[in-house]
Amino acid sequence: MSLPGVTDAKSILGEKMAEKMAENIPDLPSGPLDIYRKKASFDWKDMMRFLEGEEIIAFKRHVFRTLENDPLFARQPGEDISLEQMRELTFRRCKQLFRYNFLTQDDIMQNPMTLTILGDCLGMYDWSLGAKYNLNKAMFGATVANTGSQRHLKFVKDIEEMTAFGCFALTELSHGSNTRAMRTTARYDPSSQEFVINSPDFEAAKFWVGNMGKTATHAVVFAQLYTPDGKCHGLHSFVVQIRDPKTLLAMPGVMVGDIGKKLGQNGLDNGFALFHTVRVPRENLLNKTGDVTPDGCYVSPFKDPNKRFGASLGALSGGRVGITRMAQVNLKLALTVAVRFSATRRQFGPKEDEEIPVLEYQMQQWRLIPYLAAMYALEHFTKTFTMNFVEFQFGLMMKDKSDRQAELGREIHAISCASKAVASWTAQRAIQECREACGGHGFLAMNRLGVMRDDNDPNCTYEGDNNVILQQTSNYLLGWLQHKQQGQGKIESPLETVNFLDDMSSIRQSKFTAASVEECMNSAVPLAAYKWLLCFLLGESQEKLLHQKSSGLGDFEARNNSQVYYCRSLAIAYIEHTVLQRFHDLIHDEQTPAGLRSVLGRLCALYGLWTISNHMAILYQGGYFSGRQPVDFIQTAILTLCGLIKDDAVALVDVIAPPDFILNSPIGNADGELYKNLWSAVVQGKNVLERPSWWAEFCSDKPAVGSLRAKL
Amino acid sequence: MSLPGVTDAKSILGEKMAEKMAENIPDLPSGPLDIYRKKASFDWKDMMRFLEGEEIIAFKRHVFRTLENDPLFARQPGEDISLEQMRELTFRRCKQLFRYNFLTQDDIMQNPMTLTILGDCLGMYDWSLGAKYNLNKAMFGATVANTGSQRHLKFVKDIEEMTAFGCFALTELSHGSNTRAMRTTARYDPSSQEFVINSPDFEAAKFWVGNMGKTATHAVVFAQLYTPDGKCHGLHSFVVQIRDPKTLLAMPGVMVGDIGKKLGQNGLDNGFALFHTVRVPRENLLNKTGDVTPDGCYVSPFKDPNKRFGASLGALSGGRVGITRMAQVNLKLALTVAVRFSATRRQFGPKEDEEIPVLEYQMQQWRLIPYLAAMYALEHFTKTFTMNFVEFQFGLMMKDKSDRQAELGREIHAISCASKAVASWTAQRAIQECREACGGHGFLAMNRLGVMRDDNDPNCTYEGDNNVILQQTSNYLLGWLQHKQQGQGKIESPLETVNFLDDMSSIRQSKFTAASVEECMNSAVPLAAYKWLLCFLLGESQEKLLHQKSSGLGDFEARNNSQVYYCRSLAIAYIEHTVLQRFHDLIHDEQTPAGLRSVLGRLCALYGLWTISNHMAILYQGGYFSGRQPVDFIQTAILTLCGLIKDDAVALVDVIAPPDFILNSPIGNADGELYKNLWSAVVQGKNVLERPSWWAEFCSDKPAVGSLRAKL
Repeated sequence: MSLPGVTDAKSILGEKMAEKMAENIPDLPSGPLDIYRKKASFDWKDMMRFLEGEEIIAFKRHVFRTLENDPLFARQPGEDISLEQMRELTFRRCKQLFRYNFLTQDDIMQNPMTLTILGDCLGMYDWSLGAKYNLNKAMFGATVANTGSQRHLKFVKDIEEMTAFGCFALTELSHGSNTRAMRTTARYDPSSQEFVINSPDFEAAKFWVGNMGKTATHAVVFAQLYTPDGKCHGLHSFVVQIRDPKTLLAMPGVMVGDIGKKLGQNGLDNGFALFHTVRVPRENLLNKTGDVTPDGCYVSPFKDPNKRFGASLGALSGGRVGITRMAQVNLKLALTVAVRFSATRRQFGPKEDEEIPVLEYQMQQWRLIPYLAAMYALEHFTKTFTMNFVEFQFGLMMKDKSDRQAELGREIHAISCASKAVASWTAQRAIQECREACGGHGFLAMNRLGVMRDDNDPNCTYEGDNNVILQQTSNYLLGWLQHKQQGQGKIESPLETVNFLDDMSSIRQSKFTAASVEECMNSAVPLAAYKWLLCFLLGESQEKLLHQKSSGLGDFEARNNSQVYYCRSLAIAYIEHTVLQRFHDLIHDEQTPAGLRSVLGRLCALYGLWTISNHMAILYQGGYFSGRQPVDFIQTAILTLCGLIKDDAVALVDVIAPPDFILNSPIGNADGELYKNLWSAVVQGKNVLERPSWWAEFCSDKPAVGSLRAKL
Repeated sequence: MSLPGVTDAKSILGEKMAEKMAENIPDLPSGPLDIYRKKASFDWKDMMRFLEGEEIIAFKRHVFRTLENDPLFARQPGEDISLEQMRELTFRRCKQLFRYNFLTQDDIMQNPMTLTILGDCLGMYDWSLGAKYNLNKAMFGATVANTGSQRHLKFVKDIEEMTAFGCFALTELSHGSNTRAMRTTARYDPSSQEFVINSPDFEAAKFWVGNMGKTATHAVVFAQLYTPDGKCHGLHSFVVQIRDPKTLLAMPGVMVGDIGKKLGQNGLDNGFALFHTVRVPRENLLNKTGDVTPDGCYVSPFKDPNKRFGASLGALSGGRVGITRMAQVNLKLALTVAVRFSATRRQFGPKEDEEIPVLEYQMQQWRLIPYLAAMYALEHFTKTFTMNFVEFQFGLMMKDKSDRQAELGREIHAISCASKAVASWTAQRAIQECREACGGHGFLAMNRLGVMRDDNDPNCTYEGDNNVILQQTSNYLLGWLQHKQQGQGKIESPLETVNFLDDMSSIRQSKFTAASVEECMNSAVPLAAYKWLLCFLLGESQEKLLHQKSSGLGDFEARNNSQVYYCRSLAIAYIEHTVLQRFHDLIHDEQTPAGLRSVLGRLCALYGLWTISNHMAILYQGGYFSGRQPVDFIQTAILTLCGLIKDDAVALVDVIAPPDFILNSPIGNADGELYKNLWSAVVQGKNVLERPSWWAEFCSDKPAVGSLRAKL
C-alpha cells in the first residue's frame, strides 16, 4: 500500500522542475525554533513531498496564497465579532469562492484527492466557511444530483451559479438519531399534481439545518410520503423552495429562521423551518428510489421498503469519511500551536539562572507527542481511506453490481462509523490537552485553540452520535463471526480489515512475548496485541449478546446491554487496529524513503503502544498479559519514544502546518517569536488601551454598601 | 465525620418552623419529569436538608431570588453580546452586589460556609461576576489585609466601598509557573522615600491579571525588591495605583490595557501592565514578611529568604480550595442539564411506535451516572475540606504556632493541589460528556453547556497548571515515607489522610478478595483497592526516583523523569482515595438519615469502582488483581449500580439544581418541557425570522463562477 503522490520526485524530475518544486516549499523564517529544527533527524521538505506529492503541495500553496492576498479574507487573531457579522463575512467569503472556483469537475475527476485537500485548506482557515460552501455544493447539490433524475438538474445548475442556495433538511427538533421517526409529511394531491409539505407541530420542525438560518433558498426536505389512498411510503426527499432568491424573504407558508448561537462554527447559519401546507410540484420529489405517477400511484425500483430507506439515506455515506478528515485537520492545527509553543516557552531549569523549553520536560512530551504520533497515523489512514471511498464511488457511478462492490460498501460503512468516532474524539482530547499544555496563553482566544475545540466539537455528534454509530461497526464484525460460524465461508473483506479474524481461535491462544523494552519499541508488538484484543472482544461481545438473549431479553434490550465494555470497545479497537496496520505497512513499504523510515517507525510504534495502553486491563483480564513486565515495558517504551521523537517534534509539525496567516495563532507562528507575536497581537486589539465607554459607571454613582440588603 | 447543617431538623423544630422550612424548598413544577420523580427511592427535600441544612437553603434561596427579581440580572439564554457589553454588564452587576452586600464580616464569622455558598450562587449565575467580585474583595482586599499592616487598611476600606477597585498582579507575559523568575523590579530611592516600579521589557509585563483590563484602579504588584546597596531581596508585593478613580484613565508611567477575548469568563477583564519607572510611597510595600526603613535598610522577621518567599505566596493558599469547589459547582450545572434532558428526550424503543427516554439506555447511564456519583462524592468532600481550611485559617488568625497547625498547613496544601487538579479535570470531562450526551441540542449555545465548559477550563490552569501542582502532593507523600524510613516516627497527619500508609508493607501484601458482583457493590471494595494502590505507587515512585538518581541524574532531572506513571498517578490516587474515604465514612455515620443511606451508599460504591477502574492495569501489574474475575466483577457492578441509580437520577439533580432562572438552560428546566422551552427560547431570539441586514449580498451582484480563477 503506498501513498498517492510523487514519492521519489528527485530521481524523475529535471533540474528546472526541482527548482520549481523548491519554490513550492519556501524555507521557514529563522528564529528561536532553529534550535529544534537543526536537531531534526530528517528533512522536513522530503517528508512533505512524501506525504503530499508536488501536485498537492502546489495546489495547497495556491489556495492559501489566494486567501492571504484577498483583503476579504483578512482577520485579526481573537477578534470579537457579532453573530450577524460572522455570518455576513462567511457568506461574502463563500461567494468569493465561487469566483475563485478552485476546482472544476474536471480537476476533481483527474485527481479526486484535490477535493479533500480543498476542504482541508478551507477548514484550516475557518470551518464555517468550508461547511457553508460544502453544504450548498455537496449536501444539497450532490444529493439532488445523486438521488434525483434529469428533471432536477436545473436545481444543481442554480446552485453551481449561486442563483439559488441550498440546504439539507433531515433532522427535526425532536428527532435526530432515529431518522425513521421523522414526522414531516408530503401528501400527494393529484388534482393539482402537487405535494403538500406539512409540519404536524413544532416538534416536527426541521431543525439544525446548516445554511437554512439566513441564506438558503432551497432545501432538500425529508418527509413521509403519503399517496391519495392514505398509504405512507416512508421517508422521501423533496426539493422545496423556502425563500425568494430575489429578496431572501420566506416563501408563503414557510416559517424559516435561525436557531441562534452555537458552541462553534458560528459563521454558519443553522436554521429551522415549519411548513404550513406548502405546495411543491410533483416533479420536486427526488425520485431515484421511488416516484409518484401524476394520478397518484407509487412506483419504486425497490420492492423492500427497508432497502429503499437505506438507499435514500445512502446520500449521507460520504459524510463520515469527510468528518474523519476534518478531525485530522484539527489535530494538525492544535499540535502546530502546542508544539511550537512548547519549544519556545521556557520555564524553570536545572540551574537557577537557566530556563529550559517546556518541551524538554518528560511530562510535556507525554502530553503532546503521542498525539503527534496519532496525527501521522491518521494522516496516512485518512488519505488511503479517502481513496478507498473514491474507488467505491467510482463503482457506484459505473453501476457496478458485483459482490465486491457491495462488500466494499459494507466495509466502508463499518470503517467510517468507527473512524469518524475515534478521530473526532482524538481531536477533541488533543485540542484540550494542547490548550492546557499552553497554559494561560492557550486560554487566550487569539491563539485559536478555543475555536479549534469548538469547531471540532460537532464532529462528535453530526452524522450520528459517536457512541450510537459505533454500533454499526460492531454489528458488522459480529456479522462476520456469524458468517464463519454458520459455515458461509472465510472472513475476508475487500480492504482486508477483517481477514485476520479468520484465525480467531489460534490468535486467542497467543500471548505477549516481548522480552525487553527495546523489543517493544516496534509497532509489531502493539499490532499483535490488537489482533488478540479484537478476537477476544469479538468473542466476548457475541457471548454477552447471547447471554442477554438467553436470559429472556428481546433483541433491542440485548443489544443495548452489550454495548458498554463489549461492542463499543470492539468497534474502537477495530479502527485503532486498522489505522495502526496501515501505518505499519507504510513503514515496511519499499517505496517509503529510507531517510524517513526511522522517524515514521518511531511514530508508528508510539501510536500503537499509546492506544493499546488504554486496553491493558482487558489484556490482563483475558490472559494476554501476565506478570508486571508488559506494563513496565510498554510504559518505558512510550516514554523512551517520546524522548526520541522530541527533537523531531518541531520539524514534524513544520511538515503539516499551514502558513501563519491561515493558522492565525500568534503563539504558533513559524518564526517561533512567541512573545513578540503575542504582544504585538494584544496591543493591536480593539480598544486595548482605551478606558471603557461605560467608565462613568465606576467613577460616579458609587454604591452605598448594603443599601439594598434585605433580611432573609 | 458529619456534615455541617441540621441533619435531623424535624425532631428539633416546632411546627411553625417546619412550615417555614417547607417554604424554603418549593415543590417543582409538574411535567414530563414526574415519571422519574415518582420512581425515586428517597425524598429529595430530605436529601437537600441533609446536605445543606435549613440556614444555607434559606440563604441560597434569598440570593437566587434577589438576582431573579432585579432586572439588571435578566438575560436571554444564548444571547450574543459583545465583549464590551459583557464587561459592562458584569461590572454593573458587580456594583449592584455591593448594594446587596449579601454577607457582612459578621455573617461570615458566624457561619464561614456562607462565603462558599455565596460563591456557589454567583458562579451558578455567571462565573465572570463571581470572579470579578472575588478578585477585588479577596485577591486584592484580603491579600492587602493579610500581608500588609495597619498602614494599608485604607486600601481595604476603599475596596470595600468601591471607591477603589483592586487586582492581583503576579504573572508576567513570559512567566507563570516559575514565580521566582518574575522580572518586574522595585528599587528603593531613599531621597524621596519611594519605590520605583519598573518593567525591564515587554516580556516582563504583568499579564493575565483579572480586573486589570478595564476596571482596576489599584494593583498588588509582585516585584523583585532592590535596596540602594544594589542587593536584591527577592519577590515582594506593593500596592500600586494604576488608574485614576475619578476618570478610569491610566496613571502616568503605567501602560495598562486589556489582553482581549478569552475562551471563557469574558465578563471579566483580564489585563496587562507595563511600568515605566512608576513611583510609589515606601509605605506601599506590603510589609508583613519584610520592610525597608526610610534610609533604605532591609529588615525582615524571617532569616531564611526561602521561608520569606513561601510566606509571601501564602496569600494564595485559599485559591485552590475555592477552585475545587468551583469545579464541583460546574459539575452540578452540567449534570442538571444532561440528566433532565436524558429523562425527557426519547429516541428509538423496543417497539416501532414507542420511544423510550435516552436515560433508559445503559450506554447513556454509563456516560452520565458515574459523574453524578462523583458529584455527590465531591459535594461532601468540598464541604468538609472547606471546613478544614476554615479551621486552618482560624489558627492563622489566632497565631497558632503549634506543630499541629504547621502540619495541618502542609496537609491542606497537599490535598488542595490534588483536589484542584482532579476536580477541575472531572468537571471538564463531565461537561464534555454532558454536551455530547445532549447531542445537537447540547451544542446550542442557549443550553449553556458551552459556557460551562469554557468557564470551567481555566480551573485547570490558574493557581498552578494541574500537572505541575500534582508534584506538590506527591512530594508531600514521599516526604512522609522518608520520615518513616528515617525513623522519625509514625506516618500520621491532622486530617488522617495518610495514616494508613504507616501499614504500608502489610497493605502491599493484600489482594483483591471479593468473590461476587454483589460483594463489589460496596465502597469497601474500591477503598481497599485504593489503599493497596497508594502503597504500591508510593513505593514505586520512590524507587523510580532513587533509580534515576543512582543512574547519575541530578535532582531536577530525576524528579522530572519520575512524574509520568509514578508521582502523577500517586497524587491522583491519593485524592481519589481521600474523597472516597470521606464519602464512605459519611455513609457509615450514624447521623446520616436511614432513608438516604441506600442511595448514598450506591453512589459511593459507584464512585469508588468507577475511579479505581482507571487504575486496573496497575492493580494487575502489581499483583493485587489476578485472573479475569476482578475486571468482570467491577464492570458488572458499575453497570448494575448505574441501572439502580437511574431511577433516582432526576431526584438527585433536583437536590442540587439551582432555579431555572439561574441555570439558564431551556433543555434543563425543572418542568422537563424540553421542546416547548427550547422552541420558545429559539423563536424569541434576536432577528430570528428577519432576513439578514446584508441580504442584498445574495440577491444582487451574483458571482461569475471562476472569474477570479488563476492558473497554478
